[in-house]
Amino acid sequence: MRTVYWQDDSVRLIDQRGLPNRVVWLILGDEASVLVAIRDMAVRGAPAIGATAAFGLALAIRRASAAEPRALLDAARRSADALRAARPTAVNLAWGLDAVLRAIDADMQAGGSVASMRRAALRAAERLADADVEANRRMGTFGAQLLPDPCTVIHHCNTGALATVDYGTALGVVRAVHEAGRQVHVLVDETRPRLQGARLTAWELGQLGVPHTVIVDGAAGSFLQRGQVDAVLVGADRIAANGDTANKIGTYPLAVVAAANGVPFYVVAPTSTVDLALADGAGIPIELRDESEVLELAGQRVAPAGTRAANPAFDVTPHACITAFVTEVGVVRPPYPPALQSAVSAAASGQVPAVASQPTPGVAKP
Amino acid sequence: MRTVYWQDDSVRLIDQRGLPNRVVWLILGDEASVLVAIRDMAVRGAPAIGATAAFGLALAIRRASAAEPRALLDAARRSADALRAARPTAVNLAWGLDAVLRAIDADMQAGGSVASMRRAALRAAERLADADVEANRRMGTFGAQLLPDPCTVIHHCNTGALATVDYGTALGVVRAVHEAGRQVHVLVDETRPRLQGARLTAWELGQLGVPHTVIVDGAAGSFLQRGQVDAVLVGADRIAANGDTANKIGTYPLAVVAAANGVPFYVVAPTSTVDLALADGAGIPIELRDESEVLELAGQRVAPAGTRAANPAFDVTPHACITAFVTEVGVVRPPYPPALQSAVSAAASGQVPAVASQPTPGVAKP
Repeated sequence: MRTVYWQDDSVRLIDQRGLPNRVVWLILGDEASVLVAIRDMAVRGAPAIGATAAFGLALAIRRASAAEPRALLDAARRSADALRAARPTAVNLAWGLDAVLRAIDADMQAGGSVASMRRAALRAAERLADADVEANRRMGTFGAQLLPDPCTVIHHCNTGALATVDYGTALGVVRAVHEAGRQVHVLVDETRPRLQGARLTAWELGQLGVPHTVIVDGAAGSFLQRGQVDAVLVGADRIAANGDTANKIGTYPLAVVAAANGVPFYVVAPTSTVDLALADGAGIPIELRDESEVLELAGQRVAPAGTRAANPAFDVTPHACITAFVTEVGVVRPPYPPALQSAVSAAASGQVPAVASQPTPGVAKP
Repeated sequence: MRTVYWQDDSVRLIDQRGLPNRVVWLILGDEASVLVAIRDMAVRGAPAIGATAAFGLALAIRRASAAEPRALLDAARRSADALRAARPTAVNLAWGLDAVLRAIDADMQAGGSVASMRRAALRAAERLADADVEANRRMGTFGAQLLPDPCTVIHHCNTGALATVDYGTALGVVRAVHEAGRQVHVLVDETRPRLQGARLTAWELGQLGVPHTVIVDGAAGSFLQRGQVDAVLVGADRIAANGDTANKIGTYPLAVVAAANGVPFYVVAPTSTVDLALADGAGIPIELRDESEVLELAGQRVAPAGTRAANPAFDVTPHACITAFVTEVGVVRPPYPPALQSAVSAAASGQVPAVASQPTPGVAKP
């Protein structure tokens, strides 16, 4: 079941803040509600944000009062700018919006009416959502070939169906392994401050029947050190041209400790997460979120009154700590600048390698 | 004010579980209560556990019904064995108990009565508590000489007055720097799962007026990576002969990331924490605590029903990641096997270097 989709002139998505205790679906009937859902993390996960933003923009375009094509394009651009500012780090947000803008621009250039532009916007968002699911299944198959059987992996944050439109990126790899009948055990980083691991990843793995154990983020190192881990799998919010990767806070130390212990560290992300416009990770904007996420737990203050916190939501893992990227067009290995460039080009031109239905040894490359 | 002391035939200590919201003092009138207070972490921190156990044993000896010295010694040994099992990792627990046992044995050998043995036990415990405070002040002075002015340090768990009898180990260094009128800012790892950083360290630093900011454990790496940290300061629960150091879970990844970024990593601990009987860290017993510490927050379940957790309370940092140890007899640098041996011998024989009242450049060595 998709975690974000379009129905009856509204964007529907699962409110991730209530999980695992409450499964609540939000029905968002205007762009402002979509913006708030992204900003307040009712929906999170780079690919899910991208798809939600695309649907949100399609919704804005549907509701805009513009009487002629040019005015509608201008209105759409203003809506896109507003949505773009909802969260700064995940590049998929801009990618989703730009896909919709390109679609209505092309429709207008081809002589399309306001009505046909509205249809084109929704079609683009639907296509993007479908493509995300397909990309995830492909990454699952490519990634599964990298793991031994049986295997134990560490996973940080949440990258499952909830973080995408369906299936998942890094958790999609786990799912592919599990669906192939192989043994996999996931050590689930709880992922402070918002506990996406303990709340969301544990919930998804439970639903899938994949064996898993929650650990505090600080404990991952001790499992790596004791040789109990075969690989670390994470997603990504933005990948620079040289492979430097922004992901949930705590990813960087995990990568350093994995490298120190010779454990492969894989970033599983669609090419839509690659930002070739940024030479390296220094240019990635890092979102600072409210300090209450750190200072309060379950609505209760844990730190003394007056205590302040710093709450960067992401960190940047240098490319040198990353063993490989798993994308929808194959496994990308160093040197990353040409390999990532090739992967993005291959995806853009639809030159994607066939995926064997049963994972076979050997690694596909773009 | 001391956080653990003897008064009116009872052991008094602050219940750290209620902090920072409630300041509750426990009055423990029998050894069973002392054991529970240690096991359930009303009192925690290796030196504080050592002193509490010593007072607890003195209390047991006081209350034992033995009519003659040999029977009292036997009863004391049985009580010590029970207390020793309360928590496995911090060697200070055994060290405190052994100091009291040695004192009553010596008193008995010297012809002491049951009454004089009881007095000897309490004297030994009091001496040990006094020595801890003195050791902490000395470590503070030695450690302060290692830090630039101004400086920003990362601190993990809690090592302040609460974790000791008074003043603190790693936080004692921060305190010494602050008392010397120098500028220090502490990035406080919240320290999951029990949040000793957010609850206890932030509270102590607030009381002392030391500037500080709480961060999630996973964020420490990003501050180290961005060159915003001058040193990492931690305490220790057990130090093997080669310098491998057990400390609160999350210490090991912090040390690896500090090393990767060229940031000095200092372990601040009295020689009572050194266990020369263990060649290296592989022999240190690691306590596994209840999974509810991970799966619940503030009494509320966060993970889905049925989810399991693994909760190792400590990890072992290899000696190669440790820049130096700060002990009460000076700063100990590699090679650690001879240097730690010398430090322990110097402390045992009372050959402690004089400490300048004003920190001066240069580092004292054992």
